[in-house]
Amino acid sequence: MIIPKGFLFSGINCGLKENKLDLGLIYCEKPVEVVGFFTTNKNVSYSVTVSKNNIKNPIKAVLANSGNANCFSHKEGLKDTEKITAELAKLLKVNQKNILIASTGIIGKKMPKEKLISSFPKLINAIENSPDNFAKSIMTTDTVKKIAYAKINLSEKGHILGFAKGAGMISPNMATMLGFILTDVSLPKQILKKIAYDAIDESFNSITVDGCMSTNDTVFVLSSGRVKTKHAVEIKLFSQKLKEVCLSLATMMVRDGEGATKFIKISIKGAKTKEEASKAGFCIANSNLFKCAIYGANPNWGRIIAAIGHAGIAVKEGIPITMSDLTKKDITIDVDLKRGKFSQTIYTSDLTPEYVKINAEYS
Amino acid sequence: MIIPKGFLFSGINCGLKENKLDLGLIYCEKPVEVVGFFTTNKNVSYSVTVSKNNIKNPIKAVLANSGNANCFSHKEGLKDTEKITAELAKLLKVNQKNILIASTGIIGKKMPKEKLISSFPKLINAIENSPDNFAKSIMTTDTVKKIAYAKINLSEKGHILGFAKGAGMISPNMATMLGFILTDVSLPKQILKKIAYDAIDESFNSITVDGCMSTNDTVFVLSSGRVKTKHAVEIKLFSQKLKEVCLSLATMMVRDGEGATKFIKISIKGAKTKEEASKAGFCIANSNLFKCAIYGANPNWGRIIAAIGHAGIAVKEGIPITMSDLTKKDITIDVDLKRGKFSQTIYTSDLTPEYVKINAEYS
Repeated sequence: MIIPKGFLFSGINCGLKENKLDLGLIYCEKPVEVVGFFTTNKNVSYSVTVSKNNIKNPIKAVLANSGNANCFSHKEGLKDTEKITAELAKLLKVNQKNILIASTGIIGKKMPKEKLISSFPKLINAIENSPDNFAKSIMTTDTVKKIAYAKINLSEKGHILGFAKGAGMISPNMATMLGFILTDVSLPKQILKKIAYDAIDESFNSITVDGCMSTNDTVFVLSSGRVKTKHAVEIKLFSQKLKEVCLSLATMMVRDGEGATKFIKISIKGAKTKEEASKAGFCIANSNLFKCAIYGANPNWGRIIAAIGHAGIAVKEGIPITMSDLTKKDITIDVDLKRGKFSQTIYTSDLTPEYVKINAEYS
Repeated sequence: MIIPKGFLFSGINCGLKENKLDLGLIYCEKPVEVVGFFTTNKNVSYSVTVSKNNIKNPIKAVLANSGNANCFSHKEGLKDTEKITAELAKLLKVNQKNILIASTGIIGKKMPKEKLISSFPKLINAIENSPDNFAKSIMTTDTVKKIAYAKINLSEKGHILGFAKGAGMISPNMATMLGFILTDVSLPKQILKKIAYDAIDESFNSITVDGCMSTNDTVFVLSSGRVKTKHAVEIKLFSQKLKEVCLSLATMMVRDGEGATKFIKISIKGAKTKEEASKAGFCIANSNLFKCAIYGANPNWGRIIAAIGHAGIAVKEGIPITMSDLTKKDITIDVDLKRGKFSQTIYTSDLTPEYVKINAEYS
């Protein structure tokens, strides 16, 4: 594994879950610049609200928990969250505005802040070079840890390391997913923001598991700035590697989609605009009937036409729709709308009886 | 059962399906006025296109088939459909513009028009008073016939009789559903249109099974005009009874939703507008996570908050959300958004492993 310079990690159990890591920390040796992307859901976690406020500041640590979404639980929720970050800041000898927080788990359950706060000494004590425990601490229904990384051959060697968690409630504009992308490559913040936006648009914002949008989605991109970029070619190289890392994490999430048996890549071309291509792709990817058909290896392309029309897109008789062998685990669907020259790729999984079982029981 | 004056029925097998009725006819003794409502899907069945053209004319017969959606199958599809209605018109000694047609079944399979055309003599020969065979002929994955009726005590007795088919691909603006509402009550066409629109809005347009919108949805309201309405009170009475019949059919569809084990009534109040109430209701009703939770009798109201926020509606901490006993078959969910004074009720079913199985295999 490749670890960018300037970052350390920790992951422990603080009692939110039984016998599983549930509290994680990314510790920055020196304060770093962060670019953040949040759910567009109108009802959000207190953790999102606090992080949205703090993101503009230099960041010393990112706290993450699983087992509780820290959302819509009680009137003191926001205050409690500020208390949590303040207590961590105190131990790290920084201001609470230099802390970010991200949560995932059940909505509406009061966060037992004492459990977190009393575990901070243990969390800090466990800080180490390896990010393994951190990666484990953010898992919920995930069946695998999601880590991706890349080395970048700049004048000096640069590194990107990313983590993500997410398996259900995954939909456009990020769903119950948390993503943490670390790099030591230095870029002007506005450029980093633009590059990160593009990378996220093509990855985390191009996947859907069940069309449900979470209250907690968060992606942080942290740069320690240790490795300087010298010219535009290097920035382009970084941008490309960042996309690869993000897409790798995003597709891991889809492959680990709750109950999923198939990984489906839907490539739309011939759209009038990029937005139209995306809309068509998502409308297919979120169609329960389509997802069930793929589960059953049933090449029912009529459901694709119906989904496209549902999205408000009229297509001509006989547009090319190509499906790969549906009995395989990896499926590709190619649709040419024959309306224009824009394209987009969306990734999703099938809908299975197992998805229903997982979500009927989860509580 | 109550049969409005002026209508006769038929239902036979013409070979689209094996050993099941698949071709139906509503025969009007004299040409009748019809109001029609169609899917808002941008890719529609040839049957929808033909009926949209003819709906303004006096109607002598409505042809309906199951087993083939007559949609997106080949370049001659529209011409073939016109040939079908022309052949029926010839036998009934009317013009083809006086015929309506509605289809349901698989999308993308060429309609074997010869099977229909060669069966028309048999279909006409089987015309009878009873609507039973007609009701059976429009069934697809439906497990029960859907018939509702009402008597109206006007100066003279008036009658409403409705049929519907639908079990999956059911979503806003009608989904794979066909509805046929017959009445002998006479109303000026513009008033009938308004009353029918309101009735459909509160019934067929307020249900969802799986959020998928069909290419074929059609509701026809036919009036033979035999029973005159005398004054506004009578029109109001008719309007109320029409709503009851439509709602009864719509809820039958939800109860018969593919794989459904629960019937869920979601009442939204406190919305800023009627549209907002409807949007909130549908966003909950179409949330796979919510539907799975109800299947599992899991009172996970966090998924309701997430769905409302996904719809773009911000709500305050602690808004009232009431759920009835989730272990029962009939569930009520009451949500007060606390934003305004508008309300709307949406009906849906749960998402079950059985739904997935049905739609994995259906082809």
